[in-house]
Amino acid sequence: MSKKVVIVGGVAAGPKAACHLKRLQPGWDITVVDQDSMISYGGCGIPYYVGGDVSDEAELRSTSFHMVRDVPFFADAKGVEVLTRTRALAIDRQNKKLRVKNLDSGEEQELAYDKLMLSTGAAPFVLPIPGADLDGVFTISDLHKAIEIKKRISGGKIGRVVVIGGGAIGIEMAESFADLWGLETTLVEFMPQLLPKLVDADFATMLQRHLEEMNVAVYTGEGATEIVGDSEGRVVAVKTPQRTLEADMVIMAAGVRPRSELAKEAGLAVEPWGGITVNSRLQTSDPDIYAAGDCIAVKHLVTGKQTYAPMGSLANREGRVAADNMAGIASSFNGAVGSFIMKAFDRCIASTGITYEAAVAEGFDADYSLTAPDDRAHFFPNSASLALQLVFDKRTRQVLGLQGFGMMNDSISARIDTAAVMISKGATIEDFMMAEMAYAPPFSAAIDSLNAAAFVADNICAGRMRSVSMQRFYAWMEDFSSEPDWVVLDVRHPKEAGPFVEKFGADKWIAIRYDKVRKQHKELPTDKTLIIFCGSGNRAYEIQVFLDHLGQHNSLVLGGGMKVIRWIGAAWLPQL
Amino acid sequence: MSKKVVIVGGVAAGPKAACHLKRLQPGWDITVVDQDSMISYGGCGIPYYVGGDVSDEAELRSTSFHMVRDVPFFADAKGVEVLTRTRALAIDRQNKKLRVKNLDSGEEQELAYDKLMLSTGAAPFVLPIPGADLDGVFTISDLHKAIEIKKRISGGKIGRVVVIGGGAIGIEMAESFADLWGLETTLVEFMPQLLPKLVDADFATMLQRHLEEMNVAVYTGEGATEIVGDSEGRVVAVKTPQRTLEADMVIMAAGVRPRSELAKEAGLAVEPWGGITVNSRLQTSDPDIYAAGDCIAVKHLVTGKQTYAPMGSLANREGRVAADNMAGIASSFNGAVGSFIMKAFDRCIASTGITYEAAVAEGFDADYSLTAPDDRAHFFPNSASLALQLVFDKRTRQVLGLQGFGMMNDSISARIDTAAVMISKGATIEDFMMAEMAYAPPFSAAIDSLNAAAFVADNICAGRMRSVSMQRFYAWMEDFSSEPDWVVLDVRHPKEAGPFVEKFGADKWIAIRYDKVRKQHKELPTDKTLIIFCGSGNRAYEIQVFLDHLGQHNSLVLGGGMKVIRWIGAAWLPQL
Repeated sequence: MSKKVVIVGGVAAGPKAACHLKRLQPGWDITVVDQDSMISYGGCGIPYYVGGDVSDEAELRSTSFHMVRDVPFFADAKGVEVLTRTRALAIDRQNKKLRVKNLDSGEEQELAYDKLMLSTGAAPFVLPIPGADLDGVFTISDLHKAIEIKKRISGGKIGRVVVIGGGAIGIEMAESFADLWGLETTLVEFMPQLLPKLVDADFATMLQRHLEEMNVAVYTGEGATEIVGDSEGRVVAVKTPQRTLEADMVIMAAGVRPRSELAKEAGLAVEPWGGITVNSRLQTSDPDIYAAGDCIAVKHLVTGKQTYAPMGSLANREGRVAADNMAGIASSFNGAVGSFIMKAFDRCIASTGITYEAAVAEGFDADYSLTAPDDRAHFFPNSASLALQLVFDKRTRQVLGLQGFGMMNDSISARIDTAAVMISKGATIEDFMMAEMAYAPPFSAAIDSLNAAAFVADNICAGRMRSVSMQRFYAWMEDFSSEPDWVVLDVRHPKEAGPFVEKFGADKWIAIRYDKVRKQHKELPTDKTLIIFCGSGNRAYEIQVFLDHLGQHNSLVLGGGMKVIRWIGAAWLPQL
Repeated sequence: MSKKVVIVGGVAAGPKAACHLKRLQPGWDITVVDQDSMISYGGCGIPYYVGGDVSDEAELRSTSFHMVRDVPFFADAKGVEVLTRTRALAIDRQNKKLRVKNLDSGEEQELAYDKLMLSTGAAPFVLPIPGADLDGVFTISDLHKAIEIKKRISGGKIGRVVVIGGGAIGIEMAESFADLWGLETTLVEFMPQLLPKLVDADFATMLQRHLEEMNVAVYTGEGATEIVGDSEGRVVAVKTPQRTLEADMVIMAAGVRPRSELAKEAGLAVEPWGGITVNSRLQTSDPDIYAAGDCIAVKHLVTGKQTYAPMGSLANREGRVAADNMAGIASSFNGAVGSFIMKAFDRCIASTGITYEAAVAEGFDADYSLTAPDDRAHFFPNSASLALQLVFDKRTRQVLGLQGFGMMNDSISARIDTAAVMISKGATIEDFMMAEMAYAPPFSAAIDSLNAAAFVADNICAGRMRSVSMQRFYAWMEDFSSEPDWVVLDVRHPKEAGPFVEKFGADKWIAIRYDKVRKQHKELPTDKTLIIFCGSGNRAYEIQVFLDHLGQHNSLVLGGGMKVIRWIGAAWLPQL
C-alpha cells in the first residue's frame, strides 16, 4: 500500500532519508520541503569554497559524478518531489498534515502525511550584542551567505576580518581568509581555549600556536562585547573588554543551535537545550514523526547522556536509519562518541570520546597518557611525530577518549576512527593495546602510535609510571618557586640538553644521557623531586622505573616531552 | 626473588620482551642470544634501505632518538645482556638450561634459565631449484644480505633483476629496484595472482597493472624452474616454463617459514607446518618456555584456525604479552585478523580479515560488496576514488574481511585499521554501517567509504541488490557469446557512454543517462539481462531498484563500475 511521506529540511539528513526510502519503497510518495532555494549541499565544504579550494559553489551541491542536486535532479533521478522556498509552518498531528507556505507566492497549503520526518537542521547562534545586524557581519548558515562572503572578498575591499568563535567553523573560516586571501585575520574566543569541550587545553594550545604561526591573531578568554559600525551601517570594528579590533568583515561563528521550534510547537518532546528527543529508531514522541540530523539530541555513548552532535556524517547515517524505520525495517541509531577532525593549515587536530576535563567532570576516575609517537616508521621519509592523548578510567580501564594533533595527513584520522569504533563499544586499555594496526613502514611504526598510547596508559594504571602534566610543568618553568623542590633530569643527548642546563642552571636542570643513568645515578639528588625529561616521555619512563627499583621514588615523568613542548611552544625555551 | 630469563632471538619480539620485562622486573637477569652480529633492526625497512629512501642501514637499527641499538646500548640503556654471534643449540628442559655456541670462538656454554623465550623468527624459503645457490641470488633474510644487494647495485654492474615471488616483500623489492635505481625489473609469481591469499584476484590485478605502468614486468602463474649461471658461478638468467629472463641479480622472495627447529628438537608442540604452538599467554607446551614473533602459530580471529602471521607489529605486541606473563602479569594475545598494508609506487593496497575466496573455502555463506568511493569529500582538492571490497557472511551478516586499493596516502590505512578492530570482535554489517568515522571534507566524505561499503553489503543481504562479478563481466567483454542474452545499460553521461556504444554496438551497449531512465525505461529490452553500468555502481543500484519495482527483474549491477575497471585496466576499453 502506497504511503505518503513528508520530510522537512533538504540539506543532509532529509535528502538522504528521502532517497533511501524511495529505494526501499519505490511506490511511496515522498516530498521534501525546504525554505531555501538551494538544497542538498555539503555545508561542511563552505570554508573550502570561501578559501578557494573549491572554485564553484555548485560543486558543493553536486554528486561525485558532477550532476547538480537541484529540484529536477531529485524528481528525475530519484523520484522524489522537492518543494523549495517552502517553509513548514505547523504540524497538525491529529489529522497528520503539515501546513506549509510558499515564500515567493505567499500561498499556503496542507501536505497530508503517513510519516513525517523533521530534519530542520541547526541555526547559527547570533550573539546578543550591539551591532550583530550590521552590514558585513555574517554567520555561516547557508550557501547564500558563503557566496556573498566570497563575492565581497574577491571585490578586493576586505582587508581585515574578525572571526568571533574558536570552534571548528570559526577556525576553518579563519584559515580560508588568511591562507588563500592573505587577509589580516583575527579570531576571538570567549572561552579560555580554542575548540572548547572538543579537546583538552594542551591540544588547543598546539592548534593556537600553529594558527599564530600562519598569521592568524588569536585571543582566547575574550568575548566580543560590541560590533561597531560606521554611519552607513557598515561594520568597522569588534570590541572586546581588552581591545578594539578593526574589521571590514566579521564572521560570527559562535556555535549552532538545533532548529526545533516546529517540533516544540507541535508538542513533541524536546530537550531543555532544544534538541528534539528521539528513540533509537529516530522516532520523536509521536511515533509517526521521525527526526534526524542537526535538530536532534543524540545519546553520547561514553556518558550515556543526551548530547548535541551536529555533524554532516551523522546526519547522513541518521537519515538512512530513519528511512529504514519508516519503511518498516528495524534499524537503530544508538548514539555517537562525538568524533571530530579538522584541518588547520598544515596541521590536523582530532578527537573522539570525551576529554580529560570532561571525564573528571563526569565523575570518572580519569587519567590520561600524553605521548609523542611517530606517525610512521621513524626511518621512513616524511615521518613526523604527533601528539596523542588517551583518556581512560583508572579503575575500570575503560578508554573514554582520544585526541590527536600532528601534520596534515590522514594518519591521525586512522587512529581516531579506530579508537572511535572501540570506544563506542566500551573498549578497555587492553583492547587498545591489542588493536591490530596494519603495519608497513610507509604507514605506521612497528609499535603503532595507538598501541603505544595504550601501553603508556597500562603503565600508568599499573602504577609503574607517575607523570606530571604539561600545565603544571609550564607553571613551574614560569615560576620556579611554585615547586621549590623540583629539578629536571634531562636524559636527552647532551647537545639537546646543554642549552637548557646553560640557561636554567644545574640546580634546576641536570643532564645525564639516558644510557648513562644506570652508571651515574648516584650523582642524582635524593632530596629533590626529579622531573624526568626526554623527547617524548619514553626514555623518561624507563629511567623512572630504574630509579624506583633503587628505592628512589622521587621522580615524575613529563609525558609527551620535548616534542609536545615544541608543538605547544614556550617563551622560556632556550634559543637553539 | 631475582630470576634468570633467557631469550633466543634479538630482532623484534625478543628485544621487545627483554626490555619490557626488565622494566617490569628490574632486578631480574635477562639475556638475549642471537646468532647474528646485528640485532634489533626493522627488517620491514629493508626494501626502503635498498631503494634509497633510508640512506644508511644503521637507521634501521636505531631508536627514534637516533641511538644505535647494539650490544652496549642494551647493556647501558636497558640493563639487558645481549650475546651476539651466539647460536642456541639445544634446550635442556629438565635442567632448564640452554646450550649455546659462540660462532666466532666456537666455544659452547650452558645458560641456566627460570623462563626461556623463543623468538627465533622466520627463514626465507629457498626454492628447491637448480641454481638457487649461485652468486647473485639473494633472499631477504637479514641486514647483511640487504647491505650486499645495495653495494652491488651501487657498483653499477647490475642492470636486470628478477624477483621470484609476488608477495609483499617481493613487490616492495621490485619497487626499490625499478623506482630509484631504474633497473630492468621482472617479477614472477607461481600462483595465478600477486599477493596470493592476501587479496582477491581483482585487487591483485589492480596492483599488477600499476606495477606494469611503473615498468616492472610481471608474470603470474609462472614459477621459476631454474636459475642459470655462467662459468664463474654468477647468475645470468631465470627460467620459467614459458621463458628465459636475463638477470644480473635474482631476489628469491618465495615466502618465509617459522624457525622452529630448536623448539621441535626440545619436544615442544609445533604445528604441522612449523609454527610453534602457544596458548594465549604465549606459553609453549612447556609452561616455562614462551614463544613470540615470526616463529609461532597464531589463532586467526575469523576462521578460528591456527595460522601464520609473520609481521613486525604482531611480534612487538607478542613480545610485550610474553614479558607480562613471564613477570607474573596475566595478559593475553588472543590472535590476529591478518591486517596487511603495502606501498607500491604511487598506490596503496591493504587487507584485513579473510578474502572472498578464502571465505568461500572456509564454508561461509560468503558474498562481497565491491565499491569505488571517494577517499575524501569529492569536491576537496586531491580527492581520489579508491576500491573497497567488504567480504561478509550473508546469513549471519558477520563481516569477514576488507580489502582496499587506492592512491598512496593513509586513507586506506584508516579504513583497514578501523575494520580490523571491528572484525576481531566479530562485528556485523550493522556495526560497519554505524562506524563513526571522523568527518571533515579534507579527510572523508560525509558518507564515509567504510560506511558506504557496508550500506551496499546491507543492500545485497536484504536482496535489494543483485550484482555481477568483475571477472564474469570481463569474460563476457572478451567473448559476448559467453552470455548471449546480456546487454549493458550504461547510465553514465552520454559523453562517457558514447564511445562504448560506438565500439560495441547498440545491441550490446545501451546508453540512457541515469536521470532519464524513469522516463525512458520503456525503451529497454525485457528479454535480455541488463548489466547496469555506471562510474562506481551506485547509480546502477538505484536503477536496478527502480526496474525491480516495475517488475523488470532482469538486471545485474556491476559493482565498482568504471572506476574499478580503470584501476584493473582492459584491452577492450574504447580509446578515449
